[in-house]
Amino acid sequence: MACVCVYVCVYVRVWVKGHLGSPRGQSLKTLLTGNLEFEERMMGIYRAEVIGIVLAVAVLGPAIWLCTNQEKGQEYTQADSIQGTSVWCSGSNNVDRLCHFKNLCFSSVYDSFLFIHAEESILNGIPYQRFEPALVDLSSVADHNTQYFHYVDVAVENVIYMPHRHHIYKTGKYLLFNRFNPSNLMHIFHDDLLPIFFTILHHDLSNVTLVAFEGWVEGEYFDLYRLFSKEEPVLKMDLMETGDGLTCFQEVYVGLSKLSTWYQYGFSTPQGPLPNLNVTSFHIKHFRERVQKMLNISKTCPSESMHGVIVSREENRLLLNEDDLALTISHVFNIRVVFLSLESQSLSEIIKGVSCAKILVGVHGSLLVLSMFLPPTSILLEIFPYAINPDHYTPYKTLVSLPGMNIVYASWRNTDVEKTVYHEDLPAEYGGITHMSEADQKRILESTEVPPHLCCSDPEWLFRIYQDTMADVPAIIEILTKAMVQSSKQLDQEPKWSDDIAKHHIAPGFITDLKCLPSEKDETTSLLIKWSRPWNAAFIKLPQLQYEIWVQSPDDGKLDVFFTNETVLEITNAEDMPGYSVWVRAVAVQTKGPQSWTRC
Amino acid sequence: MACVCVYVCVYVRVWVKGHLGSPRGQSLKTLLTGNLEFEERMMGIYRAEVIGIVLAVAVLGPAIWLCTNQEKGQEYTQADSIQGTSVWCSGSNNVDRLCHFKNLCFSSVYDSFLFIHAEESILNGIPYQRFEPALVDLSSVADHNTQYFHYVDVAVENVIYMPHRHHIYKTGKYLLFNRFNPSNLMHIFHDDLLPIFFTILHHDLSNVTLVAFEGWVEGEYFDLYRLFSKEEPVLKMDLMETGDGLTCFQEVYVGLSKLSTWYQYGFSTPQGPLPNLNVTSFHIKHFRERVQKMLNISKTCPSESMHGVIVSREENRLLLNEDDLALTISHVFNIRVVFLSLESQSLSEIIKGVSCAKILVGVHGSLLVLSMFLPPTSILLEIFPYAINPDHYTPYKTLVSLPGMNIVYASWRNTDVEKTVYHEDLPAEYGGITHMSEADQKRILESTEVPPHLCCSDPEWLFRIYQDTMADVPAIIEILTKAMVQSSKQLDQEPKWSDDIAKHHIAPGFITDLKCLPSEKDETTSLLIKWSRPWNAAFIKLPQLQYEIWVQSPDDGKLDVFFTNETVLEITNAEDMPGYSVWVRAVAVQTKGPQSWTRC
Repeated sequence: MACVCVYVCVYVRVWVKGHLGSPRGQSLKTLLTGNLEFEERMMGIYRAEVIGIVLAVAVLGPAIWLCTNQEKGQEYTQADSIQGTSVWCSGSNNVDRLCHFKNLCFSSVYDSFLFIHAEESILNGIPYQRFEPALVDLSSVADHNTQYFHYVDVAVENVIYMPHRHHIYKTGKYLLFNRFNPSNLMHIFHDDLLPIFFTILHHDLSNVTLVAFEGWVEGEYFDLYRLFSKEEPVLKMDLMETGDGLTCFQEVYVGLSKLSTWYQYGFSTPQGPLPNLNVTSFHIKHFRERVQKMLNISKTCPSESMHGVIVSREENRLLLNEDDLALTISHVFNIRVVFLSLESQSLSEIIKGVSCAKILVGVHGSLLVLSMFLPPTSILLEIFPYAINPDHYTPYKTLVSLPGMNIVYASWRNTDVEKTVYHEDLPAEYGGITHMSEADQKRILESTEVPPHLCCSDPEWLFRIYQDTMADVPAIIEILTKAMVQSSKQLDQEPKWSDDIAKHHIAPGFITDLKCLPSEKDETTSLLIKWSRPWNAAFIKLPQLQYEIWVQSPDDGKLDVFFTNETVLEITNAEDMPGYSVWVRAVAVQTKGPQSWTRC
Repeated sequence: MACVCVYVCVYVRVWVKGHLGSPRGQSLKTLLTGNLEFEERMMGIYRAEVIGIVLAVAVLGPAIWLCTNQEKGQEYTQADSIQGTSVWCSGSNNVDRLCHFKNLCFSSVYDSFLFIHAEESILNGIPYQRFEPALVDLSSVADHNTQYFHYVDVAVENVIYMPHRHHIYKTGKYLLFNRFNPSNLMHIFHDDLLPIFFTILHHDLSNVTLVAFEGWVEGEYFDLYRLFSKEEPVLKMDLMETGDGLTCFQEVYVGLSKLSTWYQYGFSTPQGPLPNLNVTSFHIKHFRERVQKMLNISKTCPSESMHGVIVSREENRLLLNEDDLALTISHVFNIRVVFLSLESQSLSEIIKGVSCAKILVGVHGSLLVLSMFLPPTSILLEIFPYAINPDHYTPYKTLVSLPGMNIVYASWRNTDVEKTVYHEDLPAEYGGITHMSEADQKRILESTEVPPHLCCSDPEWLFRIYQDTMADVPAIIEILTKAMVQSSKQLDQEPKWSDDIAKHHIAPGFITDLKCLPSEKDETTSLLIKWSRPWNAAFIKLPQLQYEIWVQSPDDGKLDVFFTNETVLEITNAEDMPGYSVWVRAVAVQTKGPQSWTRC
């Protein structure tokens, strides 16, 4: 079908060239794609007739020629066929908002997404001030001012007057986002791939095509994005290259789930784990298994294939005696040790290697994000160059320490200034400091620890992190030995969902059998309130279970609140009158169950 | 595989019966549904061999027997095959929250939905206290305490110990909600059907099956719900009738979109339109056209088929001289007038009749919600019995008055006590007052207007609304004549989306060409800030466009804010120094566009 339509284009182009010159505001190639049943119609029609038909079509004006190729995106040219945009957003600000558009269009002329208002437009969940600061974040990195999604309003009846030379319609579902830093694997996995995975689950999307809008070229890790994309991911440059085009997407989801993120990079406070993590080891496991499956990597490792891995950097931040370290680890722990590096292996091979590693050793760097592929009971040992405090840089520690990951984390920090090799002459972005004042250089050289700093170009941090290091092999072996002992204790501990129970929001259910029995004793009235524990206490652990009882007096409406660990409460000296209202609920830790009510 | 499993089950029953007595915790009826191709497999297998197979299966223990009937819901019996529940919610409270569950189960034993916690469980957007008051509303009627959705937590490993006799697995997508009042058409359309329609659009669901959980029987309007349901809607009683069953749904959406609601029924303040309506006439039109299509009703009416409709109540709240009124309307306006009533026509016929009506006349009552099917330029005349103030009861007025509906609303109120017939002896729910004190009865009888009141059983309101009325025909004709004049003026006015522009959240786009030109004049420095209007001003109406300019001094960082209608601003007596920062944005009415920045 595609070829048929191209065929017609040729004829129209010839004709238009001869008769009208260059057509205004229309790309002929796009004008004519998608002609249905062309061959049937072609039979028995002479070229002159074709030209006649073309003439007729040209004067028909607003006839809508829609391509119906459901796979590759339709193309059409008449503004009459432009549909109004609709949107549904949920969330209360740009950080937690997720939006879903129907028929959202991107204008390469204005470098903007257009919301085309028409009678069929539905707007749901749009805030009153959507530019303060933005409707929704395009990245999982929260509220970063380079990651804002905006759209611009236009009226459907005016689209025809806009300077687009042609219109492209892309059918299907798209997920629009920004890659935060597509040259860095930590950023790729943490900011993009995991959030994409959970956004797809969130919306229950299957067959979604990614639209990476940050403006970068594919980059060397683009295959990772392809794994999550139905069709070849769309880049912003693809949209810009349309030549004054308007590209309309049938369905676009905007915004990434922040469920899986665990780290903030220090844009407003020094870097560290995000507060109130929601991610669990099982989220990581879901993702890991999906990626392993897509890369044809077995989920399980035969125990004989377990080995040590040294993640090796070959260009900078070197481990100067990594051969020595490898040999010693191999000898002491009696395992095969392999070097993995992006310079020597494909990423897929590295992931495969990590997936069956017992020990992973590497200098602090983005490749260590692949420790999410480490099997349970393995060890991650992270090496920090001189003057870098491991406690201040914990993206990988936070990851592998999630309850249930069952990975032993250890770090070794070079504290011996003799064992470091620094590079003051490098460009500033690789840690050079010779562009700085003598005094600043001296201060940095004399410092024994990089003080806390913000992202992203602190010269002292860059100077220190780009040092090469001579590892203290005996010290590292000692750390690994302890870690091996620790990991052997975990051998029998199968990870359980309840290892991270706080993230399951467990609450008590309804208490049962609530009764209130007034009784007279020694001329005073007492109320005996009894109930049974919540029925789900038999089927899930409800830690620190206690009960909150409200008693409202029928006299003055005054409410008294009581707490108890028992399933009975006696209230003495009650008013001698009927009509007390009693509410009882169970509370586990701080989480309250539903209230049950009775009257005394 | 399905058949194999069923097949084995049959013999297990025989075997278990013979050897162990009645099987524990299993309903054999459900065990055995879904038998495909049973007979084919049966051929050539001896019973003894089957028993052998069964024995083998029985000792295998945790083997998972899953039936794979994708259409009707799977059934299985082993707790091992129970999957963990997952949930994604968005929104900040039970009123605006919408949730989507995977594998949510309903226990008929506990009359509760169960969240089965397992390692594969994902929880996203669950609040810390989800019983205060609830996770999400099951109805579009906001925050009504009979409409709360809760779930109860259990652990996957304990499901096997729960007293369910069998498990049912329902594949596909389900929309769980409560019908608020399925015996009343206003409630059905406003609270249920429109919200269901917009919830389906919100989640981009196709092929969803409704689960009406309020507990009622089907009721006489159930066909309306069937229109929006892929398969026969599920009722709570269907779930309860499973006999100690656990029914697990593959995908469940919980919560109804409140986008389309326009009325509140007076639970906390006297009834009236909801504040800050989001619904537009085009939302109603979308819905109307969908329903008309499903009922095979033509969207357009030939002008000769336009007629008058009197919506007639035959049991109570009568219009005593409706024949007289009909004849007069027919005579004066020269149109055919038909009576439509639920006692005489099907709902589908009534909708068809309303869809081509020029005039709709009826006493205030739920059938008037069908005025959403009136065509543009038609008239709704609502009749109010004696002592009822039309301004206090406006569900239908609010509906037909939405900008763009293009329907003329008029009301007539009986103010003549001679022309009303009341029924003090009826049951209280139909307006009887003889159960009240003499004094109260006297007060009500003497009152000329029902004072504002809350829902739902104000005796004076019920007494008055259930009166029969003798219409003042000349007065009504006069009102209709005026309405006809008004509607003829609207004949040429095709409704436009921009009739209700406020609901489109139109904002200015980026201003362009921002420049700041410092200049020296008379020994003082001035800043000339110039820009061009936002580019989308050419393509959409931006009412009351003005500009907000922030100027930050390089000296003390002080920020001055200016407003202007021009696209230029001169600041005199500026500090004689470079480095002023300037931000400019356009503002339309109160809606702010994005800021552009430059430095002077």
